[in-house]
Amino acid sequence: MTARISSPSSAPVRQSSVRAHNLALVLNTVANSADPPSRAAVAAATGLTRATVSALVDDLIEGGLLIELDPPPRTGAGRPAAGLALTSAGPAGLGCEINVDYLAACVVDLTGTVRQRFTEHADQRPAGAAGALAALGRLAARARLAAEADGLVVAGATLAVPGLVSPAGLVRVAPNLGWQEVDAPAQLRAVPELADLPLAVDNEANLAALGELRVAGGDPTFLYVSGEIGIGAGLVIDGELYRGVRGWSGEIGHLTVFPDGRPCRCGATGCLEQYAGQEALAAGEPLAAAALGIALSAVVNLLDVPVIVLGGAYGPYFDRLRDGIETQLRRRVLTAGLAPVTVRAARLGADAAVRGAADAVIRRVRDDPAAWLRRVG
Amino acid sequence: MTARISSPSSAPVRQSSVRAHNLALVLNTVANSADPPSRAAVAAATGLTRATVSALVDDLIEGGLLIELDPPPRTGAGRPAAGLALTSAGPAGLGCEINVDYLAACVVDLTGTVRQRFTEHADQRPAGAAGALAALGRLAARARLAAEADGLVVAGATLAVPGLVSPAGLVRVAPNLGWQEVDAPAQLRAVPELADLPLAVDNEANLAALGELRVAGGDPTFLYVSGEIGIGAGLVIDGELYRGVRGWSGEIGHLTVFPDGRPCRCGATGCLEQYAGQEALAAGEPLAAAALGIALSAVVNLLDVPVIVLGGAYGPYFDRLRDGIETQLRRRVLTAGLAPVTVRAARLGADAAVRGAADAVIRRVRDDPAAWLRRVG
Repeated sequence: MTARISSPSSAPVRQSSVRAHNLALVLNTVANSADPPSRAAVAAATGLTRATVSALVDDLIEGGLLIELDPPPRTGAGRPAAGLALTSAGPAGLGCEINVDYLAACVVDLTGTVRQRFTEHADQRPAGAAGALAALGRLAARARLAAEADGLVVAGATLAVPGLVSPAGLVRVAPNLGWQEVDAPAQLRAVPELADLPLAVDNEANLAALGELRVAGGDPTFLYVSGEIGIGAGLVIDGELYRGVRGWSGEIGHLTVFPDGRPCRCGATGCLEQYAGQEALAAGEPLAAAALGIALSAVVNLLDVPVIVLGGAYGPYFDRLRDGIETQLRRRVLTAGLAPVTVRAARLGADAAVRGAADAVIRRVRDDPAAWLRRVG
Repeated sequence: MTARISSPSSAPVRQSSVRAHNLALVLNTVANSADPPSRAAVAAATGLTRATVSALVDDLIEGGLLIELDPPPRTGAGRPAAGLALTSAGPAGLGCEINVDYLAACVVDLTGTVRQRFTEHADQRPAGAAGALAALGRLAARARLAAEADGLVVAGATLAVPGLVSPAGLVRVAPNLGWQEVDAPAQLRAVPELADLPLAVDNEANLAALGELRVAGGDPTFLYVSGEIGIGAGLVIDGELYRGVRGWSGEIGHLTVFPDGRPCRCGATGCLEQYAGQEALAAGEPLAAAALGIALSAVVNLLDVPVIVLGGAYGPYFDRLRDGIETQLRRRVLTAGLAPVTVRAARLGADAAVRGAADAVIRRVRDDPAAWLRRVG
């Protein structure tokens, strides 16, 4: 008899993966500490033995991910222990962003600090995908060279685009740029200074949501709404971005708010984008707040999301929109009386997507430091 | 210097949790096999050694979770190995359901087979929460006694209710039953035959989605829409139910489809429930399919869900609704041209929630067999 095993639920735990897991655990324990912890404090927080922690910490220092700070001078009894911290001189992430009216590149170090930031404001539609990506490649190359002159090692790059991206990084459609089926990674890799970098592509609202997650502190679950010419959304659940089965979640701009309403460039009628996109806001659209409130009520009814963050171009309009949105939420969310929904402005403003893109690189290093140690070892 | 460690990302891996993990891995590998696998086949599928698998299998047999089947007669060379299977004589789950117009209780064994099933059709509103739960308790007690006379051990019970349930099992509100702040677990535990059982309470659409997941086979990600007097939804992502931060996701019945439309009992206007609930369907509502299509387009645009399952009372109306729903999806889902969305009828029909409730108990045993072994050991 032959057994056909269809889908075992998960992989077995082996010793090699235990080390990788524990390296990440130690690194993130240091990263999430309010003050630089001693090796003993890391051992206490993780439940690992002090000997295990010390060996892992030595590997992380050796690999350029952690540093040991001198103990502060103290007058009490006993010698204070040295504290551990993420290094600001190790691996860094390169974030690149293309949007309808600007290009951006930035470099963020392992501690989350922005070390380089370049922006070019210009309408990207006339140049087409090839022209725009070539210009972005030049900007990104400048950011990388400046970061490396500053002692950083760029570990990889992530590109943010306002469109639907396939798992392989192909931009299937970016309606407001007029792009279809653009192989963005191939075009960026054609820039010699970027050819060797691991490169990912993602939707700009997804990356902006990740950027906001990094700075937001207390909100592990929120919907980030990115108001640009189009409107996108990134859904963060328990600190993780939810992407949908094909990576195409978050198309909040095409939620129907008025079924018999204005025609949209997507072919449907009454889409949110027609009432609360950047162009409608600039024209003083009176239905903007109500339309946003109706669409956001749908999100909360469906997903029980406690926090809504308005970002991108919504920043300057936030105070004007807030009351109208909250009125709809109170009226249309079934659980409005049981649990509050907070609506707030994004903390990162227009930089959220490019910072989230750089941060995505850093996060891969932090989630799997063993892979980084193998790369530099 | 004192280090304050705020939130280490996860727990360290220790040997005791490795055994628990591997027990679950072996049990689920057997459960997911098309034919009863040998110990060697389980070792090959899991990557564990044959000695480890044999020791774990012995524990699972001893604890009444697995059985070893006699090898089939064979004429070829060599002795065929015995195959492993889940036992149908071990732990079982008790599912209980209260809805507006019926009560139900069923017992499902570890293999997923329904062993007992009791239903009482009657309007549950006049009796109030106390009367309805007392009647359900009597029905559930009969199901448990019948199952135990049949050699099963009822491991726990789950109650399905059409309402918002707190993490502690309190029914905060069940609008169509007229319930508010009902401590359903306390009232069910007052039935002597149920007093000793671990008891959980969950929303009926969530449990129906889990029931459908168990039989659906190929669809790990889908939205289950439960059409009753009210309309609920259960969202299954990668084989896991998404509950929302407070457990109150899936309130699709209160998505706004026509902002200036009919008043709803929730206080808002134009809710889906007013156009596509059971009463509207029975009255031949001409906007039912369009309203469902608009609401489901919002779900797909937001969440990139590839499959929609219509269950509960939608069964008999499915053929009438399908075209109208698909027309809206083609028109309003931004990615409709790139990826298909399948709309299908639920496979379990009206039984989905009570079977999902029983299955939830079984799933807890299968996810953590080590806990079950400690309980019976």
